[in-house]
Amino acid sequence: MKGRWVLGVDIGGTNLVVAAVPATGGQPTSIRSEATQASRGPDDAVERIVVMANEVIEETLAAERGRRSDFAGVGIGCPGPLDLGRGVIVTTPNLGWDGFPIRTRISEKLQMPASLDNDANCATFGEWWQGAGKGVGSLVGVTLGTGIGGGYIERGRLMRGVSGSAFELGHTTINFEGRLCRCGNRGCLEAYTSGPNIAARALDGLASGRTSILPDLVGGDLEQITAETVYEALVQGDGFSTDLIRETADLLGIGLANVVNLFNPQMIVLVGGVTRAGEHLFGPLRESIERRAFPSAVGACRVVSGALPATAGVIGAAGVFVIDRVA
Amino acid sequence: MKGRWVLGVDIGGTNLVVAAVPATGGQPTSIRSEATQASRGPDDAVERIVVMANEVIEETLAAERGRRSDFAGVGIGCPGPLDLGRGVIVTTPNLGWDGFPIRTRISEKLQMPASLDNDANCATFGEWWQGAGKGVGSLVGVTLGTGIGGGYIERGRLMRGVSGSAFELGHTTINFEGRLCRCGNRGCLEAYTSGPNIAARALDGLASGRTSILPDLVGGDLEQITAETVYEALVQGDGFSTDLIRETADLLGIGLANVVNLFNPQMIVLVGGVTRAGEHLFGPLRESIERRAFPSAVGACRVVSGALPATAGVIGAAGVFVIDRVA
Repeated sequence: MKGRWVLGVDIGGTNLVVAAVPATGGQPTSIRSEATQASRGPDDAVERIVVMANEVIEETLAAERGRRSDFAGVGIGCPGPLDLGRGVIVTTPNLGWDGFPIRTRISEKLQMPASLDNDANCATFGEWWQGAGKGVGSLVGVTLGTGIGGGYIERGRLMRGVSGSAFELGHTTINFEGRLCRCGNRGCLEAYTSGPNIAARALDGLASGRTSILPDLVGGDLEQITAETVYEALVQGDGFSTDLIRETADLLGIGLANVVNLFNPQMIVLVGGVTRAGEHLFGPLRESIERRAFPSAVGACRVVSGALPATAGVIGAAGVFVIDRVA
Repeated sequence: MKGRWVLGVDIGGTNLVVAAVPATGGQPTSIRSEATQASRGPDDAVERIVVMANEVIEETLAAERGRRSDFAGVGIGCPGPLDLGRGVIVTTPNLGWDGFPIRTRISEKLQMPASLDNDANCATFGEWWQGAGKGVGSLVGVTLGTGIGGGYIERGRLMRGVSGSAFELGHTTINFEGRLCRCGNRGCLEAYTSGPNIAARALDGLASGRTSILPDLVGGDLEQITAETVYEALVQGDGFSTDLIRETADLLGIGLANVVNLFNPQMIVLVGGVTRAGEHLFGPLRESIERRAFPSAVGACRVVSGALPATAGVIGAAGVFVIDRVA
């Protein structure tokens, strides 16, 4: 592949992030970010992405001396489901955009070739390319947020699946008689361990009479409790919130034990806000995986936190562009 | 790879099978099979395998005109866990053999290079190489028997995992509050859908007062009920057994929906005795997968019965030898 830099674009439910990333890897030379404001529609978002992209390009060229043609292209990461072949957003519940040809629009506006992959694949690839999983032979990435997603990389190649929807970890069943999931099924991993479901489980616990500082932290308005509030309460020593995070780790470990027994990977990298709970999460999580998965597979697998908390997605989006050109 | 034929050796809990398989693929030119009699120990089994192998070689050479040196080597399939690097049976609950260097022993006795892989990988590879999944880009094989295993092949390559224990499907959790599994965990897929657990669930149903012809089929000795008895009763129109197979299909579908959402494969091939239940199994199985997995992934995935009911394992064992030499 020709070119010194690649643009990365990370389209998230909260923020749009654009960065210039060295084509051979490394930290971004320039980065911009702003609120997604998804309700303004995809065309508006593309306009703002292009403005940020041009700023990022100019900043990089000014600092590093180069020409616009030194940018090989742009890699885009976006929540799905996506039609990877056509480069189209099929439908994104988190953004409310449907049937939008994101890859062509950005490619045309920037006059560069573009690639598209889903956000969880990009974050996984970012951690493998430049983060916690650098050089690892087989790696599972798990994104913990509003939803639960992930990706699998073996020998430097993302497993995309025959219709581009591989590694939908959030919608694997861990209890077919369990909690109702927003997808309509019972007992999906996401129905227990996504941010909104951690909050929902907190409300369930409070409703059943558990005492906690959580109501105080939200001024009594229980609807305001989020996974972040639970984390805050844990930091302040709240027993109920500590139990809740331990239980979350236990449940997440059941889903990850399934992953360990199916993929037997060298590493699992967790990405997302929930990982801020640190050893409160990782301690019981590792114990839960150990209880359920085969000892030889557990022994071969490191379970770690991502090393690029804010940039795995945008760096990975650029990286996916690079490998897609090379492959 | 040089050589016109490869020997396949399939070491099962019930039978030892040895076959001569064309190195470029195709049906065996000669095949032998006998009871495993595992209690006589691994050395005794190796002796008998070697006798069968020499018969198979002679029969092939007599019919096809060739020399012993036209046999490139021998591929061995065996229940695990195995140490693939050293070619050693670590421990096999089904056979009772521990720490046995099966690859070296067979290689030395036959004076041929040998490969070793687990039985589920071999059966999966057999179906991909010569069976129901010929030429498929990504294929999941599921072996249904005393245990539940499987394998995953993408672009002609088996996913073995970093410590050789990938795709232990039987020990993925579908209900963390569910039935106790022989592995010690609760709610493994195997705890519901393996042969012995189908029989155990039949006993549970009878104990709870369900009427059925099952007791008659075993002369009142309920201990004699197996998954095969349930199948026999279903064929004779037994309502309870029909329900039980439908429920089995439903539960198996939950585990396979997880596989569909994680691997997004082009095909799932089911191998093993339970598949004899035909559409009684496959109908509700496909419905169960459809209920739980993403529509785009379900639509892209064919769920079929294996095409090599007796020989997938032995053909696949030979095939694994071939790809390991080529890779």
